[in-house]
Amino acid sequence: FISQVHSDDETSPRDKQQKNSKGNGDFCIKNIKQADFGRREIEIAEQEMPALMALRKRAQGEKPLAGAKIVGCTHITAQTAVLMETLSALGAQCRWAACNIYSTQNEVAAALAEGGEAHVFAWKGESEDDFWWCIDRCVNVEGWQPNMILDDGGDLTHWIYKKYPSMFKKIKGIVEESVTGVHRLYQLSKAGKLCVPAMNVNDSVTKQKFDNLYCCRESILDGLKRTTDVMFGGKQVVVCGYGEVGKGCCAALKAMGSIVYVTEIDPICALQACMDGFRLVKLTEVIRQVDIVITCTGNKNVVVRENLDRMKNGCIVCNMGHSNTEIDVASLRTPELTWERVRSQVDHVIWPDGKRIVLLAEGRLLNLSCSTVPTFVLSITATTQALALIELYNAPEGRYKQDVYLLPKKMDEYVASLHLPTFDAHLTELSDEQAKYLGLNKNGPFKPNYYR
Amino acid sequence: FISQVHSDDETSPRDKQQKNSKGNGDFCIKNIKQADFGRREIEIAEQEMPALMALRKRAQGEKPLAGAKIVGCTHITAQTAVLMETLSALGAQCRWAACNIYSTQNEVAAALAEGGEAHVFAWKGESEDDFWWCIDRCVNVEGWQPNMILDDGGDLTHWIYKKYPSMFKKIKGIVEESVTGVHRLYQLSKAGKLCVPAMNVNDSVTKQKFDNLYCCRESILDGLKRTTDVMFGGKQVVVCGYGEVGKGCCAALKAMGSIVYVTEIDPICALQACMDGFRLVKLTEVIRQVDIVITCTGNKNVVVRENLDRMKNGCIVCNMGHSNTEIDVASLRTPELTWERVRSQVDHVIWPDGKRIVLLAEGRLLNLSCSTVPTFVLSITATTQALALIELYNAPEGRYKQDVYLLPKKMDEYVASLHLPTFDAHLTELSDEQAKYLGLNKNGPFKPNYYR
Amino acid sequence: FISQVHSDDETSPRDKQQKNSKGNGDFCIKNIKQADFGRREIEIAEQEMPALMALRKRAQGEKPLAGAKIVGCTHITAQTAVLMETLSALGAQCRWAACNIYSTQNEVAAALAEGGEAHVFAWKGESEDDFWWCIDRCVNVEGWQPNMILDDGGDLTHWIYKKYPSMFKKIKGIVEESVTGVHRLYQLSKAGKLCVPAMNVNDSVTKQKFDNLYCCRESILDGLKRTTDVMFGGKQVVVCGYGEVGKGCCAALKAMGSIVYVTEIDPICALQACMDGFRLVKLTEVIRQVDIVITCTGNKNVVVRENLDRMKNGCIVCNMGHSNTEIDVASLRTPELTWERVRSQVDHVIWPDGKRIVLLAEGRLLNLSCSTVPTFVLSITATTQALALIELYNAPEGRYKQDVYLLPKKMDEYVASLHLPTFDAHLTELSDEQAKYLGLNKNGPFKPNYYR
Amino acid sequence: FISQVHSDDETSPRDKQQKNSKGNGDFCIKNIKQADFGRREIEIAEQEMPALMALRKRAQGEKPLAGAKIVGCTHITAQTAVLMETLSALGAQCRWAACNIYSTQNEVAAALAEGGEAHVFAWKGESEDDFWWCIDRCVNVEGWQPNMILDDGGDLTHWIYKKYPSMFKKIKGIVEESVTGVHRLYQLSKAGKLCVPAMNVNDSVTKQKFDNLYCCRESILDGLKRTTDVMFGGKQVVVCGYGEVGKGCCAALKAMGSIVYVTEIDPICALQACMDGFRLVKLTEVIRQVDIVITCTGNKNVVVRENLDRMKNGCIVCNMGHSNTEIDVASLRTPELTWERVRSQVDHVIWPDGKRIVLLAEGRLLNLSCSTVPTFVLSITATTQALALIELYNAPEGRYKQDVYLLPKKMDEYVASLHLPTFDAHLTELSDEQAKYLGLNKNGPFKPNYYR
Repeated sequence: FISQVHSDDETSPRDKQQKNSKGNGDFCIKNIKQADFGRREIEIAEQEMPALMALRKRAQGEKPLAGAKIVGCTHITAQTAVLMETLSALGAQCRWAACNIYSTQNEVAAALAEGGEAHVFAWKGESEDDFWWCIDRCVNVEGWQPNMILDDGGDLTHWIYKKYPSMFKKIKGIVEESVTGVHRLYQLSKAGKLCVPAMNVNDSVTKQKFDNLYCCRESILDGLKRTTDVMFGGKQVVVCGYGEVGKGCCAALKAMGSIVYVTEIDPICALQACMDGFRLVKLTEVIRQVDIVITCTGNKNVVVRENLDRMKNGCIVCNMGHSNTEIDVASLRTPELTWERVRSQVDHVIWPDGKRIVLLAEGRLLNLSCSTVPTFVLSITATTQALALIELYNAPEGRYKQDVYLLPKKMDEYVASLHLPTFDAHLTELSDEQAKYLGLNKNGPFKPNYYR
Repeated sequence: FISQVHSDDETSPRDKQQKNSKGNGDFCIKNIKQADFGRREIEIAEQEMPALMALRKRAQGEKPLAGAKIVGCTHITAQTAVLMETLSALGAQCRWAACNIYSTQNEVAAALAEGGEAHVFAWKGESEDDFWWCIDRCVNVEGWQPNMILDDGGDLTHWIYKKYPSMFKKIKGIVEESVTGVHRLYQLSKAGKLCVPAMNVNDSVTKQKFDNLYCCRESILDGLKRTTDVMFGGKQVVVCGYGEVGKGCCAALKAMGSIVYVTEIDPICALQACMDGFRLVKLTEVIRQVDIVITCTGNKNVVVRENLDRMKNGCIVCNMGHSNTEIDVASLRTPELTWERVRSQVDHVIWPDGKRIVLLAEGRLLNLSCSTVPTFVLSITATTQALALIELYNAPEGRYKQDVYLLPKKMDEYVASLHLPTFDAHLTELSDEQAKYLGLNKNGPFKPNYYR
Repeated sequence: FISQVHSDDETSPRDKQQKNSKGNGDFCIKNIKQADFGRREIEIAEQEMPALMALRKRAQGEKPLAGAKIVGCTHITAQTAVLMETLSALGAQCRWAACNIYSTQNEVAAALAEGGEAHVFAWKGESEDDFWWCIDRCVNVEGWQPNMILDDGGDLTHWIYKKYPSMFKKIKGIVEESVTGVHRLYQLSKAGKLCVPAMNVNDSVTKQKFDNLYCCRESILDGLKRTTDVMFGGKQVVVCGYGEVGKGCCAALKAMGSIVYVTEIDPICALQACMDGFRLVKLTEVIRQVDIVITCTGNKNVVVRENLDRMKNGCIVCNMGHSNTEIDVASLRTPELTWERVRSQVDHVIWPDGKRIVLLAEGRLLNLSCSTVPTFVLSITATTQALALIELYNAPEGRYKQDVYLLPKKMDEYVASLHLPTFDAHLTELSDEQAKYLGLNKNGPFKPNYYR
Repeated sequence: FISQVHSDDETSPRDKQQKNSKGNGDFCIKNIKQADFGRREIEIAEQEMPALMALRKRAQGEKPLAGAKIVGCTHITAQTAVLMETLSALGAQCRWAACNIYSTQNEVAAALAEGGEAHVFAWKGESEDDFWWCIDRCVNVEGWQPNMILDDGGDLTHWIYKKYPSMFKKIKGIVEESVTGVHRLYQLSKAGKLCVPAMNVNDSVTKQKFDNLYCCRESILDGLKRTTDVMFGGKQVVVCGYGEVGKGCCAALKAMGSIVYVTEIDPICALQACMDGFRLVKLTEVIRQVDIVITCTGNKNVVVRENLDRMKNGCIVCNMGHSNTEIDVASLRTPELTWERVRSQVDHVIWPDGKRIVLLAEGRLLNLSCSTVPTFVLSITATTQALALIELYNAPEGRYKQDVYLLPKKMDEYVASLHLPTFDAHLTELSDEQAKYLGLNKNGPFKPNYYR
C-alpha cells in the first residue's frame, strides 16, 4: 500500500537517468527520492529480524561470503532488503531483480539503491518485458559474473539456462525458495541437466512448520475476519485436507469455538484428524450444513460446482492451499449466476433463487491475499536462505554434486537457535557424558535428517 | 466507511427541505437519495438477525406493541434499523435520534426515512448542537407524545427529565442499554427520582456473555492483528483483569500459543485464573518481559507511566476494558517522548533512548476501535431490547414499580432460544414427569434469577 | 482402603471400654491403637490444607470461637480432622459423629480421640442403629450443651429437632454443607419452622466452581480411565446437561480429542454450548453413534431403556450429575438382559443379540465412586465451613434472622485468598484512588453478591 | 493382575506333562485349565482389534502366509493372541515364546494352547533359565524350521544367531518391534553381519504417533492420577524434552489447567515449544517452584541429585521417556535420605529437614508402570507387524536386501485405513483427474517415505 504509482510521473524507469547521492547509477528503480522513507522501513524490519542481525555480528571478523557475487530474484521488500544488506555485510556483492511484477516496495528499492550495497533493478507495476529486462541487467554485466544464484520461482535460473548457459561454469550453486522453482530443479536433475548443486530451502523443517502450521493457525482467523467479520463461535466449518496447513486451520477454529469437520484422502492424516477430535467426513456429507468451507489440499477441483450448488445461503468459501485450483471458480462464471463485489477480495455469487455464496479472494490464497505474513516467519526464511548461500559457497569440493539438496540438519537447527532469543528461550546443553550416551555431538545435529 | 461526508454538499441537513418519495417530510437526514443503498444494507442485516425476523412473524396476528409510541436514541446502523422496523411491525410508532454524533450510517437513515416506518433525525458528523436538536425533534411533537423510551447512554432520558418532565405521566417505561445509562438510572432510583419503571438490559445474562466473553475472545485477536500484524505464537502477554472480558482474551491468546500472565484484585477471579492455567502476578513482576499488555479491568490507572517506562522495546499496549482510563495515556504526553502515528489507531511512543511502545487506539477500547462487533452479538442485544419494550408495555399494573429491573429470566431464556436455530441447535424438552421432579415449569424459567 | 474391618475383632465399639493414653474415655471409635497411623494421615493432609493452617496462625491471639460448643456430623477423614482441630485451636469445644456409616477412617478417628481435642463417636461399618446412637452421644451430654451445629446432610439437625428441640434456644446457628441438607433447611424456613439462622455453604461461589467445574474437569477423565482404560482420542461422546459439571466434562474430553455432543433443556446454557464449539442435539439424534454417554443434569430418567436399547455395542454409560436417578438403571433389570460384573464398579449389561453396554458405578456418581476428590477441593469446603461458623458465632444480634443465608461475599473472597499461596499467586491491591473510583472498599467485597 | 501364581502349584511347567483336549502336547504353559477364561479375554480383545479381524476376512480366499513358519517372541497377552491367531488364519504355522518373564497372561497362553493354532512356551514368572529354554523350544524342533521371525527386543534373533546361524538360510526376514531390537539390527547391518532382510516396525509413522504423541497425551494424566490423586489445575510443571512424548504430555497438562515449562536441547523442538505456548527454560531456572517434574528425553541423568535437592516439598517426579536412566534415582540411595513406600509405585523420599519428594515407579516408565496401553494402540502395532510379515514373506526376490527397512509407506497407510472404521471415519477418494494432477496413484502411497 505504500508504493502507489503516481499519475504525474509516467516515464518508464528504464528511460530515466538515475544516480544516487554518491553518483552511482548502476541500478534501475522508480524514484531515488523515496530512499529515506524506505530506509525507515528497513530499520523497522531489522528490529524484528534479529537472526540476520546476529549473523552480521558473528561475521564481522571473517567474511564467509567474501568474493561471492550473488545474483538474486525475489520479492523486494523491507525484509528481503535486510537479507541483501546482510549478504553484503558478509562480504558478498549483490545484484537483484524482482520475482513478481507487483511485489516491489519502491521506497525500499530506493533505499537499497541509495545505500549502494545491492544493485537493484525493479519497480512496482513493471511490465512483463521490463521483468525480463531487469533480470538481464542483473546478470549481463561487463566485467562481472555471478557465482551464486538466489532464486524464488526459478525465473532467474531459467533465464541464465536459456541465455547464458556458459555462466554456470563459474556458479557454485543455486538456492531456491519456492515450491515451483524447486519442482523445476528436480525435473532438471532427473533429466540430467542440472549443472550445479542446488539447495531446496523450501522444504527445510523450520520453514515448513512456520510457513504452514504456525502461520496458517493465525492467518486463517485473520483472513476470515478482515474479509467477512464472521463470528467463529458455533460456526460449522469443513476443512479439506489435514496436512500442516489444515492442522493449523483446524486447531485455530476449534479453539475459537467452531465445530470443524475434516476431509482427507491420506489415511494416516485422516487418523490424526480423528485423534485430534475432528469428524472425518466426505465433503458431500456436510456440504449442506456448513457455514464455512476451507480448502488446504494442494489438489485441484476439491470444491466443484455441484458442491457449491448445495451450500446454504451465506456460506463462505475460501482457499488456504498451495494453488488457486482447489475451488473450481471457473464453474461459477455462468450466466445464471450473478457476481457482486462486496468489498475488496470478497464476492457474493448469487443463485437465481437468491442464495448467496461468499467467495474470498476469487479462490486464490486467502492468507496471502487477505492477511499478512508476520516478519518473524519471513525472518526464518531469509536466515535459511543466507545460511544456504554460505554453505554452498564454502562447501569443500565434492560435498555437493549436481543435484538438489535439503539444508543440512545442523544448519536448520542453527536457524532455529538464532530465533530463540526472540522468545527469551533458554536452550539446555548436553553434558559430555550425555552426548556420549546419546551418540551425538554436543552441538548437534540432534536428530536424523528425516526427522520432522 | 460507507458514509463519507462529501465536500460538495456543505448545507446542514437542518437547513434543507426534505421529503421522501411518498411526500412525507417528518425526518431529518443527510441525503434521501441514498435510500436504495441503505435498504440493501438493511436487507443483508435482516438475514443475520433471524430472531427479530421470527418476532415479526410470531406477532403478525396480535400486535403486542399496538398503540406504543416509542422514542429511541441509539446508534443508527443497519442492525438498529432492523430493530426499528420490527418494533413498527409489532404495532409501534417510532421516532429516533442518534446516541453518538459519528455513528450514524447515512444510507441506512435514508432508507428508514424513505420507508416511512421510523421518523429519523440523525446524520454522521452532526454537531453537538445538532445532536440535542435531533433529540428534541423526536419528543417535542405537536399532537404526539411518547409512551415508551429506548435509550443507549441516557441522553434522551436526561433531555426529557430536564425539558419535559410532565411527559413521564404517560410513559410506561424506559429500556436502557448502556453501562453509563444504567448507572444514571440506579442513581435516580436511589435518589427517589425515578418516576417510571426502567429495564436494565445491559446486565441480562445472554447479553453479558456475548458482549464480553464470546465477543472479546474473537475481537482481541482481530484488533491486535489489524493494527499490528503481530504473530501471537510464543508471545508473552499480561492481561490485567480476569472478569468475562479478561477470560475471553486469555482463552484466545492461550489457544494461539501465547504465554499469558494475569493480574487481579479479586481473589475469586484470581483463583479461577490459576485453575485455568495462568500465572497470577503483579504487573511489576512481568512488565519488563512481556510483548503485549492488555487491560480489562474497568478500573483507572491500571497501567501507569512507571510501568510504561519499564516495558521493553516494541511492547504493544491496549485496552479492552470498560473505560478509556485504564491506561494513563495522559502521562505519555510529556516533552521527552515523541509520538509517531504509524497507521490508523496505532501510535509509536518513542523514549529518548529509542525505545518504542506501540499504543493502540490511544488507550480507548481496542475492540470497538479496531475490530467489528459481529451482527450475531448485535442481534442478541436488539432482541433483548425488543422483548424488554414488549414486557414493560404490556405488564399489568403493579408488576413493575418506579425502579430499575433486570429482564425476567424467562425472557432472557427466550432471547437465547430465538438464536439457537442459527446453529441448527436442537433443544431437549422436559417431560411432564421430569418437570415435576425438578419443580420447574416445562417452558422455563429453568434457572433462578441470580444464576449466571 | 486404609480402614479394613479386621475379622479378628468383632466386638462392637459400643461394648468396649475405651480410654486414650491420657485416661480420657469420652469417645467411641474402632481402635485407639491406630492413633499413630491416623496422626500421620492428618499431618499429610495438613500440608495440603494451608488455608486452615493459616487460620490457626492468625487466630493465635484472639480466639474467635472461644466459648463455642460445636456439635458436628460429617465424613470423618484426615481432611475433616484438620478442620476439627482447627476449630479447637480457634477456641471451640467439639463433639463429632459421622454422616455416613461407611466413610469414617478409623485410624483418623483414633488419632482424634487420642489427641483429645474432638470427642468422636464413629467407626467404619457402623449399623444404622449405631449411627443414631453416635449422634445422640454427641448432643445428649450431661452438663454440656452445643451452641453451634455443623451438619452435612441434615441428619444431626433433624435429630435435635426431633429429640431436643429446646436445645435450639442456646444454638446460635447451623452451618450446612450438602444439597440435601440445604434443601431441608429451606423447607423448614418456608414452613416458618427454622428457629435459628442457617448458613448454606454449599452454594458459595468458590465451593461451587471447585466442586463442579474444576473438579469434574479432572474426575471425568480419571473415573473413565480407572474403570475402562478407554482411549479418549477420536471417541464420540454425548454429555447430557451443560451446567458447571457438564462444562467441565465437555472441556476435558474435547481437550483429549473426543468429539463431544451436548443436550440441554435451558436455552441459555444451550447457546453457551454452541459458542463453546459443541453440537447441540437431542439424545436420540446421536444415541446410535456415540461411544460414551455421560449425564450431568440433576434430572431423572435422562437416559431411559429406549435409549439404552439403541446404543451401539461397547457403549459406556455413566453419571456425573447430582443424583442416581439420571440413568434409569432399574429398566435394565429385566430377564432378557444379562449383567456381568467385569471389575469393581463396572458392569456389562448384555442384550440377547450379544450387544454389551458398559455401565459404570451402577448409575451412581462416577466421580465419587471411581475417582477421588483432591484435597485442595476439600480444603476449600472445610475453610468455608470454618468461616461460616466464625461468622454466625460472632455476628452481632440481628444481623442474621431465622433464615437460610449464603456466606457473605467478603468471606467467600477470603476463602479464595487463603488458597492463593498454594499457586504462588500474587494478588494486586487497589490504590486508594482506584478504590474510590470503583466505589469499593480496598479489602473487598469486590463484586456484588449475585456475581458468579 | 489376572495371572496370579497360585501357591498351591509350585511344580515348574517344564516338569509337567501337558496336553490339550485334542491330545496335542506341543506347548508349555502354566495351566491348561485356564483356557476358557483366556478365550473370553481373547474374544473381548477381538472386538477392539477390528483391523486384524478385517485382515482375516480379506485373506479368507488367498492365504498370504500359506507356507509361512513363524517363530515369535513377544509379550503374550490377549492382544498378541489375536495377532497369532490372525497369522494362523492367514496360513502360517506359529511357535511362540515370551519376550519378558513377567508379562505372560497365563490364561491367554492356555487358550492358545487349547486352540492349537499357536504352540506357546511361556508362563508368568518364569526364570531367566526358563526364558531361554522356552525360546529354544520354539526354534529347535525336529522336522520344522522357521522361515520368518517376529521379535520384540531381539532376544529370539540373538539366540538363533548364536545357536543356529545356519537357520538363516531358510529365513526370509525378521520383523522387529522394539527400539532396542531395532538398534541391534542396525548394528548388525553396519557390521555387515545381517544375513536376512529386517523390517523395523518401531519407526513406522502410524505406530510412532500412537505410541508416543496420542498415547502419552492420555497416559500422563492417568499415571499421575492413579498414583497421586494430584489436582492438575494451577499446578506448575516442567517437562524435560519436547519430542512426541513431551508434546503429548504438555498438551494434556496445559488443557487441564497446569502451567507448563519445557526444557530442550534441540533448537527446532525448542522453537516448536515456544510457538505452542510454553516457556522454554533450563531446569535450574524453575526447579525450586514446580510441583511436578516429568522427563521425556531418552537421555540419561536429566534430573540429578542437585536438582532433587532443590525441589520444593511435595514435588512429584516421574519419567515418561525411553529409559529408566533419565532420573538419577541411584543418587537418592544415600543414608541421610529416608525412603517410604506410600502405595504401589509411589515412594516418598524424605530429606533430613522433612522435605518429601514423591518419586513414581522408582524412575521407571510411568505410563507402562502406572497406566495401561489402550487396545487401540496395541491394535495398530499388531496390524503393522502382520503386514510386515506378509510383505517380507511375499516380496519378490531382490526387493529387500540384507538390510533394515522401514515399512513401505503404502503399508503404513493401509494400517491406518484399517483403523478408520473404528471412528466411523469416511475417507475421500481421488478422482482420476486429481490423481493425475498430483502425480499419485489413486490408492496411494499419498506421501513420500520421509513424510511424518
